[in-house]
Parts: sequence; C-alpha cells; structure tokens
Amino acid sequence: MTPFKLTAELLEEIAVLIANKDNKALKTLLLDIHFADVAEIVNELNSEEATYLIKLLDSEKTSDILTELDEDMRESILANLSAKEIAEELDELDTDDAADIVAELPTEMIGKVISAIEDREHAKDIVDLLRYDEDTAGGLMAKELVKVNENWNVLTCVKEMRAQAENVTRVHSIYVVDAEDKLVGRLSLKDLLTTSTKQPIKDVYITKVDAVSVNESTEEVAKIMSKYDLEAIPVIDELGRLVGRITIDDIVDVIREEAEKDYQLAAGISNDVEADDSIWELTKARIPWLFLGLIGGVGAAAIMGGFETLIQKYAILFFFTPLIAAMAGNVGVQSSAIVVQGIANDDVKGSIGQRVFKEMLLALLNGTILAVILLLFTWFWKGDLRTSIAIAISLVTVTVAAGVIGTFTPLFLHKRGIDPAIATGPFITTSNDIFGILIYFSIAKAILGF
Amino acid sequence: MTPFKLTAELLEEIAVLIANKDNKALKTLLLDIHFADVAEIVNELNSEEATYLIKLLDSEKTSDILTELDEDMRESILANLSAKEIAEELDELDTDDAADIVAELPTEMIGKVISAIEDREHAKDIVDLLRYDEDTAGGLMAKELVKVNENWNVLTCVKEMRAQAENVTRVHSIYVVDAEDKLVGRLSLKDLLTTSTKQPIKDVYITKVDAVSVNESTEEVAKIMSKYDLEAIPVIDELGRLVGRITIDDIVDVIREEAEKDYQLAAGISNDVEADDSIWELTKARIPWLFLGLIGGVGAAAIMGGFETLIQKYAILFFFTPLIAAMAGNVGVQSSAIVVQGIANDDVKGSIGQRVFKEMLLALLNGTILAVILLLFTWFWKGDLRTSIAIAISLVTVTVAAGVIGTFTPLFLHKRGIDPAIATGPFITTSNDIFGILIYFSIAKAILGF
Repeated sequence: MTPFKLTAELLEEIAVLIANKDNKALKTLLLDIHFADVAEIVNELNSEEATYLIKLLDSEKTSDILTELDEDMRESILANLSAKEIAEELDELDTDDAADIVAELPTEMIGKVISAIEDREHAKDIVDLLRYDEDTAGGLMAKELVKVNENWNVLTCVKEMRAQAENVTRVHSIYVVDAEDKLVGRLSLKDLLTTSTKQPIKDVYITKVDAVSVNESTEEVAKIMSKYDLEAIPVIDELGRLVGRITIDDIVDVIREEAEKDYQLAAGISNDVEADDSIWELTKARIPWLFLGLIGGVGAAAIMGGFETLIQKYAILFFFTPLIAAMAGNVGVQSSAIVVQGIANDDVKGSIGQRVFKEMLLALLNGTILAVILLLFTWFWKGDLRTSIAIAISLVTVTVAAGVIGTFTPLFLHKRGIDPAIATGPFITTSNDIFGILIYFSIAKAILGF
Repeated sequence: MTPFKLTAELLEEIAVLIANKDNKALKTLLLDIHFADVAEIVNELNSEEATYLIKLLDSEKTSDILTELDEDMRESILANLSAKEIAEELDELDTDDAADIVAELPTEMIGKVISAIEDREHAKDIVDLLRYDEDTAGGLMAKELVKVNENWNVLTCVKEMRAQAENVTRVHSIYVVDAEDKLVGRLSLKDLLTTSTKQPIKDVYITKVDAVSVNESTEEVAKIMSKYDLEAIPVIDELGRLVGRITIDDIVDVIREEAEKDYQLAAGISNDVEADDSIWELTKARIPWLFLGLIGGVGAAAIMGGFETLIQKYAILFFFTPLIAAMAGNVGVQSSAIVVQGIANDDVKGSIGQRVFKEMLLALLNGTILAVILLLFTWFWKGDLRTSIAIAISLVTVTVAAGVIGTFTPLFLHKRGIDPAIATGPFITTSNDIFGILIYFSIAKAILGF
C-alpha cells in the first residue's frame, strides 16, 4: 500500500473548499481517505474548519475520526456540537470508544448527551463503563461481545450469535456463560460449524478460558495478552460475571503509551506532552525536573565551596568536577534503566542484594577501565602522578557508588509501590551529581592530605 | 485469571524431579502450565536440565517453548539436539517462528535440519523466508494464510479453505488472488457464509485490501497496523504476488522491542541487553557511551584549564560548572527526546527552522525562570551582584543553546537517514556539557571583564 502522506497542498485544497462551502467536492475528496488519515488532516485545521467538516460528513465516518483526533482538537469540536449531534456520533461507536469521549465532556453535558443517545441499551452500556478507572481493565474493555448460554443448543446459539455479531466488529471468540451470567468457557467458530445443530452447548465448549478482572491494571492486561499471544480477553467482575472484553488493538495503544511515558520520564518530562503542544504545556512538563537539577547544582556548588581553600594548590581537581558529575550521572542512568526495564518485563530475579552486587562489579570493571585512561591523560597533561592517582581512584569509587544508587533506587521504589521509571533520568542524575562530587573531593582530600 | 508466578519452590521441585528422572511426575506437573510459562521455568534451569525437559515433552509443546526462550538458552539446548530432533520441532511451528530458529543455527547445521523436515512444503516455505532481512516485512511474515482464486466459486472456495485453515492458527481474512497469484482483494468469513454456493468469487470479494511490500521495514508495518487497527496484513512481493501475512501479535513484539531499544539508547546502552545478561555483555553495551562521557569530561577540563588565571578571583564560577553542565544536559535531553518521539510518531510538522525556534523560546522561558532563582541564591550567598548576574545570564544562554542543539541534532540525523534515537542520552549530554561550559566561561569573561 502507498501510505497516506499529509501534504501542505492537500491541506490548502481542503481549506479552500471549506471556505467556498463546496460540500460536494469535499465529500468526494474525503470519501476514499481512511478515517485515521482524515483525523490527521482535521488536526491541522482550525476549530471552525474542523467543526464544519465533522458536521458535513456522515456520522458513521466522523465518529471514527473523532476517536483518532488529538484530545484538544476533539474537545474544541465537541464544544461546537449540540448534545444531540454528539449522541449521534456515540451511537456509531463501540461502547469503549464512546465512553472515552463521554468521559472528556464537561459534567453538565454528560447527562444531556447520554439521554439523547437513541439506542438505550448502548447508552446503558456506556454509563456502565464510565464508572471504571481508565487505567484498569474495566476502563479499557468494550461491552460488545458474543456470548451464549451453556444451556442452549448449537442451533439457538448460531441464531443468537448472528444477532449479536451485528454489533461486534470482529468476533474473536464466543464466550459461554451460565444461567447467572458467570463466564464458564469459550467456543471456537470452527467447533460450532462442525457440530450437529441439536447438540447442547454444554457438551461442546472449552472450559479453559483466560479472563482478567475489571480491576486489573491495563499494564498487567497488556503483559498477559502479549505473553500468551491473545487477540482478545474477556473481562469478569467481582462475581465472575462476564462484563466485557479487551481486544489486542487497544493493548497496542496501551503498550505505546506506556513506552512513551517511560521514555519521557527518563528524559525528565513529567506529563504526557507532544512536540506540537503549547509552550506553556511543555514548560509545565519540564520545569520541575530542571528545578530539581538546579537544586542539585546548587548543592554541588555548596560542597565545592567547602573545599575552597585547596583551589590554589589543586586547581586541576576543580577542572575535573564536570567529568566526575557526568560519569556519576551516566553510570547511574545506565544501571537504573536496565533495572526499570527488568521490572517492567518481570525478569529481574534474585534478591535486591544480588542485583546491587552485580551492578557494583560491573561499575567497578567499567570504572577501572576508564580510570586507567584518565590517569594516563592527567599524568601527561600536568605531570603530577599523585594528583592523577587521586582523580583516578575517585573516579572508580564514584562509578561504583553511582551504579549502586542507580540500581538500588528503582528497586526500592518498586518495593514501596512507586513507579520505578521516575527514578531514571534527572532524579538519578541529580543525586549522583551531588554524591559524586562529595565522594570525589573527600577521596582527593584523603589522598593528597591537604 | 491468576497469573502464573515462577517460585523458587517450583524450580526446586522440577530440578529434583529431573535429577530423579521422574518423567511421569514431570509430565503431569507441566501438563497444565502454558508454554510461555514453561519457557520461563526452562530459562532458569541449567543447559542439561533444560535439554532433558525438552527431550521429554511432546514436540507440539516444546516447539512453542523453544520460540519463547531466551536466545542463549535456546542456542545451548539446540546444540544438544540432533538435526532430526530439531526438524521435528520445526515441523510443529509456523513458518515464521521456524525460520527465526533456523536463522540462529550454526551454518553447518542448517542444511541438515532442513533436509530432515518431514513436510517438504513446510521446508520450502522456511527456506523462502530465510532470504529476508529480519527487520523487513519479509522477515516477520508467515507463509500460513488462507487464499482463494478469484475464478473459483463459493463452494470450491469453502472446500479449499477448510483444507488450508488446518495449518493456520487464526483466520483473520481470506485473501483473493488472480491466476498469477497476484493479490486482488479479500473476502470476509461473514460474506462467504451468507452467499449462494454457486456464485463465483469474482462477484463477492472486496477489492480494497491493504498490503505491505516484503521490503517494508517492520517499524513502518507496525505503524500502519496500529494506525489502521489491523489484526493482520498481507505481504506482497515486487510483482504484487501474495507471499505471506503478518499478524498483530508479531507487531506487539516489534513495538515492545523498538521501545526498549530507544529507552536503552536514551540511557546510554547500545546493545539489546537484559538485566540478567553477563557482566561482559553488559560492559560491551555500556562502555562506549561512558568513554564518550570521559572524552567530554576531559574536553570540559581542558576548557576550564584555559580559564585557570581567573580561579583566584572568581572561584565561585568554578563551583557552578556542575550546575551549568547538568542544566545544559537536562535541557538538551528534554528537547531531543520530544523530537525523537515526534519523529517516531510522524507528528513533527513544519520546518526544522520553526521547530528549533519553538524550542528556543521554550528554553528561554525555562532558562529565565531558573536564572532568576539562581541569581537570588548566589547574590545572597556571596553578596556579589555582578558575579551573580554573570552566572544568571550564562545560565539563560546555555539553556537556549542546549535546547537548540537538542532539537537540531535528532532532526538533522533523521534527515540524513540516521536513527535519531542515538542523539538522546549521552551523546547530547556530552556535547552540551562541553558547549555549556565554554559558553558559560566566555560570557562570564565578557561581563566580568578579566
């Protein structure tokens, strides 16, 4: 396929057509463009143009476009629509996508929109979904699924399924429930097609069925589905009743968002922001971490101020503080990143003690290699072996300490139930800067005996 | 579902059963454990125990276990198996998983194993897949798919499909090809079931079908499939012939690996390593970046050495070098991370110039806020307004420069076709350390007039 490419020409063409209110040409132009691509276009329009397009096109297509838009664009379009217009869009959507949109509406609109939804069953399902936290299986699941009662026979089953399947985009599995709606098993389409129509479902279904609880975290659901290569998983409530299902495409989004969040945290960006967000949004996401760095830098300055008397005799020590700080930061980030990733993948085995010991050995090896190189360099540069040795020994010690802090911090946070990803990036860099400089000058002082 | 939890007791029990050669108990114990979980167990055994288990269990299960193992464990088990034994495992696997395993075998084994595969058609498919690069659609696709000829009628079609579906775990779509095997469309199972059996396929199929070329990068395939919420996509060769299909579960793995690679690069780890890898593997992945940091630190020291004469009068300038370096590094990493992510998601719009300008404004805003705080602090600490102003102005300038470098570098690398993710982390930190310190001392010199 030739992937869709959003060009300045296309955008210009659409803006002109909107300005001329040339509805026919607009409809024809957008007819063959996938809704995800139309969403890309709409994201680039201004709010009036965007609303014009959404009102113009069929709600079958615009509802899908709405789900794909950037949050602020969606918000400003919805603000221009009446409760009835929004309800028409929601009628076209699966319950999970509809509930996500409803959750973003201003409180006073929610009631009006819900009452305006034509399909009352659909409205009820959406309201049901609203009560779940967005980070749980309940917040991710859709109500659309195909389920059959274990007491039916194959014929009834096929009939009922046909009716249910109307509302379900993709049928992955047919779930079997008992009289109390408890999930008891699943059926494969294959089995259903190859069994006599009079046979009761009880005799045909597979009792082994994976399910997750409504309260399970989305991260855990993602882990389970990707570990066991599942394309859909049923969701059960506290009583074991089948209440929804999660499909793999939602999980793909969870994995992507999780990865982006961790990546941004590692880079010292604390909210979910994008390159195109406003300067104010971006500042809010970044300045806390920079402020942390400022505090760290001031701390480092204060420590160095305490060693001011030796600046005349050993100026070279001061020249190497950026190197020491950088090394402490880099080693710390490397160690913490590998631990954070290990925790995320559940493959950090053994005790905290063992892990810290291994990172210590690793830092010792790396630190020694680098210290030897640095020793030779400083010796040739300044010709003073004793100072060079002091700097080299400090570097090894700082590296080991940085590795230990970088390993211990995320493990400790994880044990306390705090997201360890917060420990990478600026947090580790800053604390390691301070510790590193303190260790460095202390060791230099001990060796050089000032 | 209660997720499987690998305990020390379970491992101990299995090790004892293996030592006692209690095959019956072993088989019973492992019968109900999912192959992905058995793989977790096997990863923790030694090579002899692992081989024992693999030889003991049915190849229907062990083949799946093999695909889930860590690479080194799989390698050492396969080294203990004969060509015939390996071929038996491959016979059970889908072509994509089989080809991945074959690609890891020593060259002299490949021919032997391939000749020992019983199903010759399967062997041929595996050999076909071997010629594709692992980072392309061809390297990711499987040969298993259901395809029908446009010239058949529905009845023939259903018959042929039944036979083909035997080998396909999940049927997502039925692909339609012409007499030359060119992909021309797709059929939905639904349509097929609701159409008269005598109707020719030509009249029923949907001509709109997304496909990717064998040479498309896996990253691009992942983008397409997740953007358009596809569960499977057909792969075509240079002649438009249908040669395979990629399913969403493979894409989940691609997304995860991509995210982990970027995260590690940002943390200064250059190979794909895990927390449990050997110290030597981990060192190889980390030391290049640390060495880069060392060079940077030495560069910074050399720059500071050039300003040695002012150390008596303005010692405080030297105390703030770690702060300046840290700020330059942090701002640079923030800017580059947001650009790298924007590039990955295709949502960096506008020219390089606009982007750099925006980051400059942002850095100016952040830098000014922080500089004012620092100004007040240094003024109260040392009571010298002029030095404090010099430090504050330097901080703003360094912040802006760091933001510009952080934005420009990944954009520039991307334009040149180099993975921009390499620009985050140590690379930016190091170059910003040097530039930052140079700018800092130069501005201080200009203002203080020494």
